[in-house]
Amino acid sequence: MENFIFYNPTKIIFGKGVISQIGTETSKIARKVLILYGMGSIKQNGIYDSVCMSLNESNITYIEVSGIKPNPIISKVREAIKSAKEQNVEAIIAIGGGSVIDAAGFYYDGDPWDFIQDLSRVPPKALPIITVLTISATSSEMNRGAVILNEEIDMKIAFYSDYTFPKISFLDPEFQYSLPKKQIAFGAVDIITHVLEFYFDGTKNTEFQDYFAESIIKTVIKNTEILLENPKDYEARAQFTWMGTIALSGINAAGRNFGDWATHRIGHAISAMYDTAHGETLSIVLPAWMRYCLKTDINKFYRFGHEIFSIKAIDREEVGIRGIQALKDWFRKIGVSTSLVDSGIRIYDIPKIAVNPSIRYPLGKLRVLEQTDVENILRLTNY
Amino acid sequence: MENFIFYNPTKIIFGKGVISQIGTETSKIARKVLILYGMGSIKQNGIYDSVCMSLNESNITYIEVSGIKPNPIISKVREAIKSAKEQNVEAIIAIGGGSVIDAAGFYYDGDPWDFIQDLSRVPPKALPIITVLTISATSSEMNRGAVILNEEIDMKIAFYSDYTFPKISFLDPEFQYSLPKKQIAFGAVDIITHVLEFYFDGTKNTEFQDYFAESIIKTVIKNTEILLENPKDYEARAQFTWMGTIALSGINAAGRNFGDWATHRIGHAISAMYDTAHGETLSIVLPAWMRYCLKTDINKFYRFGHEIFSIKAIDREEVGIRGIQALKDWFRKIGVSTSLVDSGIRIYDIPKIAVNPSIRYPLGKLRVLEQTDVENILRLTNY
Repeated sequence: MENFIFYNPTKIIFGKGVISQIGTETSKIARKVLILYGMGSIKQNGIYDSVCMSLNESNITYIEVSGIKPNPIISKVREAIKSAKEQNVEAIIAIGGGSVIDAAGFYYDGDPWDFIQDLSRVPPKALPIITVLTISATSSEMNRGAVILNEEIDMKIAFYSDYTFPKISFLDPEFQYSLPKKQIAFGAVDIITHVLEFYFDGTKNTEFQDYFAESIIKTVIKNTEILLENPKDYEARAQFTWMGTIALSGINAAGRNFGDWATHRIGHAISAMYDTAHGETLSIVLPAWMRYCLKTDINKFYRFGHEIFSIKAIDREEVGIRGIQALKDWFRKIGVSTSLVDSGIRIYDIPKIAVNPSIRYPLGKLRVLEQTDVENILRLTNY
Repeated sequence: MENFIFYNPTKIIFGKGVISQIGTETSKIARKVLILYGMGSIKQNGIYDSVCMSLNESNITYIEVSGIKPNPIISKVREAIKSAKEQNVEAIIAIGGGSVIDAAGFYYDGDPWDFIQDLSRVPPKALPIITVLTISATSSEMNRGAVILNEEIDMKIAFYSDYTFPKISFLDPEFQYSLPKKQIAFGAVDIITHVLEFYFDGTKNTEFQDYFAESIIKTVIKNTEILLENPKDYEARAQFTWMGTIALSGINAAGRNFGDWATHRIGHAISAMYDTAHGETLSIVLPAWMRYCLKTDINKFYRFGHEIFSIKAIDREEVGIRGIQALKDWFRKIGVSTSLVDSGIRIYDIPKIAVNPSIRYPLGKLRVLEQTDVENILRLTNY
């Protein structure tokens, strides 16, 4: 177990009907806010109206910036920052999933890309962020990371700051009833991958951490299947929502070696080049990465197959292989792609992906990867 | 799953040698502090010197109040508050276990017993608390609860305030190497009981929460046994330390029904009357309480026996009964008492315990208990 710092000051307000509290909670922080959201579905499903009603009751004024897309782009973030400054808002309310919440985290006097170019720089301040979660996947509602795509140079990358922990996040599982099934599946892939980035980062003596990771994955697998059958099963939705939040909130990371992150980086490269959905890039890369790294830590892959998919065999490597295959089969069962070809990406693009600047070499912790390794992993996705 | 608020802003700094950071971390909050500790073992084992060396390096001045005992008494807390006010300290550094940390939480302009007499009152402010953990058991290093004993009226009771979350807690597992084996065992009992107070509070649809609770208990059982053999096994000590912190940090509570707490309240009554160690009161009461409540939620007791002790039988009630017995046997195996008589408390005192003011009726959530129920549970401890 490694030394660690655990710190997560976000207040989570979770459950049916909690959005009625957003006015009073916001009034403790700000009198004027910027509401940031995506492509407008929140105006059809009533979430926007619920938020505004509560803000109006507490006499909080607001301006809006909409149109934040999946794989949020830097130009849109700059537009939101400009509006926030011109209008002197005191907080940002981000209504959406990881893309919208991440975009809210970049408020800063300089240009947001500064942090990416120089990772030693941290923002000197940020506007308080309040989130209203509408898609469970990234844990952005309870962590300090934010991912952004610079469309000018096809580069997608993450930055981290204690300033970008949301102050408060409102999580009403019912807000996700109307999500397309594809989004549920992508969310499940993202949550499972976040957990496994740490599970397979090579740290030893992480007994509780491993139980914890397995608890999340088992809960996600079971409840994803329920939700794909019945999207309005409240209890399954509540479990799924809480898993999306807790997976990358820092608890799973405590005592580990900061995560492997090779799968995410390779996925970011694919998203940056083809605008592929984040979840889809992960379901393609993760099983191939696991298969490529199996022999580096056979005992851990054995544990994975045994604990998650109850695979029993005498040979530990065989349990590992069958566990990875079971995960890949489950991804297909819930309707997501597990190969580049199925996602319309041509095999002869592989060398280009491997040199995209979203990937920084040397890559990964469990097995340190070079460019040829990434090419091999991407080729493995088609088998 | 119930609606919930999760909020825990304590910063945990965990691992070997982290105490060298206490000076710089404290200097961000205070220039003068009160160091609060117990009976002086920290002066023998070097912990006191390590703290003072780091404070000196950051030019932080300090005063001391020592002599905080297990089951901390209100008169001692009043003495500490008086010193803090007279000397204008800006923060409290609590070095110890739950008793010392809890005592630090009562700083307040009025009398600390005010909160106990009127639970609707919350302190208007508190001094920032920094903790240096020396005994894992209560999670006081990462929660907002504090327990205190009023020795004038033999009453031991808890209060809760967002002001009493420690700002920072330093957890070096090596600081617990010299603890007596009895303390390890009592800590294990306390951690397991904290988890089970929530596990058995009657909430339904808590799939992840149940996995989480079981993860902690399995980790504690395994690592307690290692530590009783080899107290200086760092990895076992690290797992045990982190379990002591996480057990009552709010994660296990999220989505549940605020816990049952009957076992703790009955235990507090015993401690208030006989000054029995907190852990000992729990190992006495918990198995008897479980046996008494078994039929109220057979499925949950089945799950407990099956998941924690791998008990297999066709009849679910039988799995539950054997699980409870396995827990009681394990308590005996690690050397703690499971009966009032073994702890020197006479059977004809039982009616007096049941009317001690530390117990407030109606008591408990899973099964609502009256005075006769408590007497029955206390009698069951001897079988």
